[in-house]
Amino acid sequence: MTGLFDGTFARGGAAQAVSDEAWFRALLDAEAALARAAAGLGLVPTTAADAVTAAAADPGGLDLATVIVRAADDGNPVPPLVRVLRDAVGERDAVAVHVGATSQDILDTALVLLARTALGAIDGDLAAAAEAAARLAAAHRDDVVMGRTLMQQALPTTFGLKAAGWLAGLDGARLRLAEVTASLPVQYGGAAGTLAASGGSGVALRTAFATELGLADTPAPWHTVRLPIADLAGVLGAVAGVVATVAVDVVLLAQTEVAEVSEGGARGGS
Amino acid sequence: MTGLFDGTFARGGAAQAVSDEAWFRALLDAEAALARAAAGLGLVPTTAADAVTAAAADPGGLDLATVIVRAADDGNPVPPLVRVLRDAVGERDAVAVHVGATSQDILDTALVLLARTALGAIDGDLAAAAEAAARLAAAHRDDVVMGRTLMQQALPTTFGLKAAGWLAGLDGARLRLAEVTASLPVQYGGAAGTLAASGGSGVALRTAFATELGLADTPAPWHTVRLPIADLAGVLGAVAGVVATVAVDVVLLAQTEVAEVSEGGARGGS
Amino acid sequence: MTGLFDGTFARGGAAQAVSDEAWFRALLDAEAALARAAAGLGLVPTTAADAVTAAAADPGGLDLATVIVRAADDGNPVPPLVRVLRDAVGERDAVAVHVGATSQDILDTALVLLARTALGAIDGDLAAAAEAAARLAAAHRDDVVMGRTLMQQALPTTFGLKAAGWLAGLDGARLRLAEVTASLPVQYGGAAGTLAASGGSGVALRTAFATELGLADTPAPWHTVRLPIADLAGVLGAVAGVVATVAVDVVLLAQTEVAEVSEGGARGGS
Amino acid sequence: MTGLFDGTFARGGAAQAVSDEAWFRALLDAEAALARAAAGLGLVPTTAADAVTAAAADPGGLDLATVIVRAADDGNPVPPLVRVLRDAVGERDAVAVHVGATSQDILDTALVLLARTALGAIDGDLAAAAEAAARLAAAHRDDVVMGRTLMQQALPTTFGLKAAGWLAGLDGARLRLAEVTASLPVQYGGAAGTLAASGGSGVALRTAFATELGLADTPAPWHTVRLPIADLAGVLGAVAGVVATVAVDVVLLAQTEVAEVSEGGARGGS
Repeated sequence: MTGLFDGTFARGGAAQAVSDEAWFRALLDAEAALARAAAGLGLVPTTAADAVTAAAADPGGLDLATVIVRAADDGNPVPPLVRVLRDAVGERDAVAVHVGATSQDILDTALVLLARTALGAIDGDLAAAAEAAARLAAAHRDDVVMGRTLMQQALPTTFGLKAAGWLAGLDGARLRLAEVTASLPVQYGGAAGTLAASGGSGVALRTAFATELGLADTPAPWHTVRLPIADLAGVLGAVAGVVATVAVDVVLLAQTEVAEVSEGGARGGS
Repeated sequence: MTGLFDGTFARGGAAQAVSDEAWFRALLDAEAALARAAAGLGLVPTTAADAVTAAAADPGGLDLATVIVRAADDGNPVPPLVRVLRDAVGERDAVAVHVGATSQDILDTALVLLARTALGAIDGDLAAAAEAAARLAAAHRDDVVMGRTLMQQALPTTFGLKAAGWLAGLDGARLRLAEVTASLPVQYGGAAGTLAASGGSGVALRTAFATELGLADTPAPWHTVRLPIADLAGVLGAVAGVVATVAVDVVLLAQTEVAEVSEGGARGGS
Repeated sequence: MTGLFDGTFARGGAAQAVSDEAWFRALLDAEAALARAAAGLGLVPTTAADAVTAAAADPGGLDLATVIVRAADDGNPVPPLVRVLRDAVGERDAVAVHVGATSQDILDTALVLLARTALGAIDGDLAAAAEAAARLAAAHRDDVVMGRTLMQQALPTTFGLKAAGWLAGLDGARLRLAEVTASLPVQYGGAAGTLAASGGSGVALRTAFATELGLADTPAPWHTVRLPIADLAGVLGAVAGVVATVAVDVVLLAQTEVAEVSEGGARGGS
Repeated sequence: MTGLFDGTFARGGAAQAVSDEAWFRALLDAEAALARAAAGLGLVPTTAADAVTAAAADPGGLDLATVIVRAADDGNPVPPLVRVLRDAVGERDAVAVHVGATSQDILDTALVLLARTALGAIDGDLAAAAEAAARLAAAHRDDVVMGRTLMQQALPTTFGLKAAGWLAGLDGARLRLAEVTASLPVQYGGAAGTLAASGGSGVALRTAFATELGLADTPAPWHTVRLPIADLAGVLGAVAGVVATVAVDVVLLAQTEVAEVSEGGARGGS
């Protein structure tokens, strides 16, 4: 059962992309990808990496209730998740779990995977809105409405031009989303970011880890320099600004006295 | 089962105070109090108000799953909750449900009830921290540690004086919490804030509604002038600032090289 | 000559209250008050305190250009200001300058003095707005306009009730300003906040310093626990919120199609 | 004479880039570029555009005091500036001033010009910091210091690796600055954004205007969709975050007990 306010206000793909289930899946995806990357470099047996991948693909077989309880004590869910994953694959294959990694490597990489999915969901919504704006711009190309300055009627314009402005904003927001999505990096540095536990293969392992997940590689860990998070904040702020601009325009145009749009579609002088 | 990140980071009374269950309880408490207030003024039969109070006290007997589903369509959970509550008490007593009210009256009043409980939980935590700071201030009154300017050692001070500074901050935060808690107001204005549906008794009903819930009365509805929300934001910011100051002090004092405090208790020169 | 954007957007008492001239005056007022407070307790000769007060009252006689240049090197204007003030009063009376104080004592106290003046200017503007709202509420008590829900016409209300809502918000903002103004505290703790340089009279000197300036006394320095700054931020946010609400209401009511108010005054059914 | 707090805290190229003088110069640069762009398209005589360029290049010959006074009344400095510029070039050449433009076209374009200069100044500072970080990374490549987790000593790392992390952050910030700088767009839409006063040449004039100033062209005016401002906010936030990270690292490393860096240079095990 969805919650009262979750169900009311936080619907759709972006909300699901950051659910508890999605977090578990992303943490497990990161661990599995790291195991495969390590196997590809010959650091662990391929059979062990396969076992980790199989265990991670079946969260139902893992004792996640214990992870949740212990996460509160560790202040971080990765240590108990690693223990549960090692138990699941058995002593022989446990060597492929969490190779040379520290908790922040897995948490940040999972965060980036969630962000990629959520940005994809947001982009889908923006694409639909942009398509609608494009249709309105074409359909109402010559429909004259009042242009306003400081909310006072100023000069005639067309509803199509207003919709074209929305389209330009939505396209601009999508372009920025695409750039940030393409630059989302893997995190991998090991404890204190030194790659000391990666047996001399740390840089190669970071590259292979990135390739496994389709994420960007980085020359250094970003555990203290949080530019990717700043990028996410920046682009989400830009998207919210564009969507709010369109929404406020629509609410203003829909006022009873103005009535240039209504819920059924644009009046737009037609 | 508590969620992964809920369970890790959002524990304790304040988290429970804003759960979905707490929201339902607060919405129902608001409706029941309004029914009793209306009965006290003779606007509805006392028996009807009693029936509403009884139904609101037993959420298990209400079809809340339907409320959740319909809340998404209405964009607001109050209309379906009112329908469910009217169904529960039956046609005769339905007159005592939502007397002269609009959705925002119930939502804002419930929000204020939740805030009061959450502020109480936060105040309990602050009181415990203040007591600990007071004990440290007394115990380490004469224990000399280095005072710092811009994180460089400057002049000797005592650990007791540091702890007394924390105590002053925590007490100051509690004082502000108490003031905001005491000023939390009921919301009651009816549609468009005119009290038009309250049959000439709107002002008296607002006062009686406030008294039922132990909230402050207001001369006018605050549905557009959101000072109580600004007060909440202000006081939570102040509390967070004080707690963060203490926390950063402790982390800095606990650094391996400084080691003036450790998890077992303050070293403080003793 | 006022600046281009200063002159355009930042006019009136609050802008002057935080000008460079006002900062110098506040820093000098703080030093003079501290000198008099110390003299009142017999810590320095009254004649020396009088000399400091006289020098501080005549900024034209002080080499403030040097203070500005050296402030950049010290990262803080108080050390060069103290040197200039000591030079101005001469060796014998220099004992009354900056008694037992650290730079932050003077900077924070001056900041609080500036804030008090600026809040007073803001309160004056709010009082004028509240009076206007009261006049509108009385004059248009019975003038019917449309009440709106989500910007759609909903139910009739009166323009007087709208204005009364503005009045309630403005009065609420003024009440909060008055509380914060009354609680603005002096800062006095000496280096590292220990009062060690105040010769055993630190607490009494803080009280006397507060009395000289009409500020609140505090049991401990607030150099690390910044609740007074949080209070300022909170109340300015609340004021801005109320003023913005009124402004948006007016802009919406003034739209060409709605035209319920115009720059000459409210139409409001009249 | 620089101001007290300006001189203390806001020094360097970025502060100058947003001074009142810089604003006037940018507004005049925008008007002059628009005149030349219009002449290039044959919309106004080249001699008139030359006269505007000459007048704009000599602010001393313009009555800017009047602009400042009138800007306060208009709420915007462009209308009085246009009048002063038209007076300066005389009736015959006034046709080349403000061709088809609205105030926001000039204000936004000037803002973008200021931003470009300010970003350049910030980039210069970042480049110097990055070079210093690169030198430190090379010099202290093998100097062992303690790596920390949650400010507790954890594992050995090298000072060179810390400095390399700073370098990665500073380079990342510079990359983002360069992208935003390259995308800064001209604003040109005329009143209500319709290009109606540009005599059918509006789109070509926007492109020519952009070329004159070395700014990006846009398919539509961005007077309501403020993505370029969101980009500026985002990149400045990212830069501030990186610089703050480095600064906090240095302050922590410079603590008396840690003493891994000092103002003279890094100790870093050397």
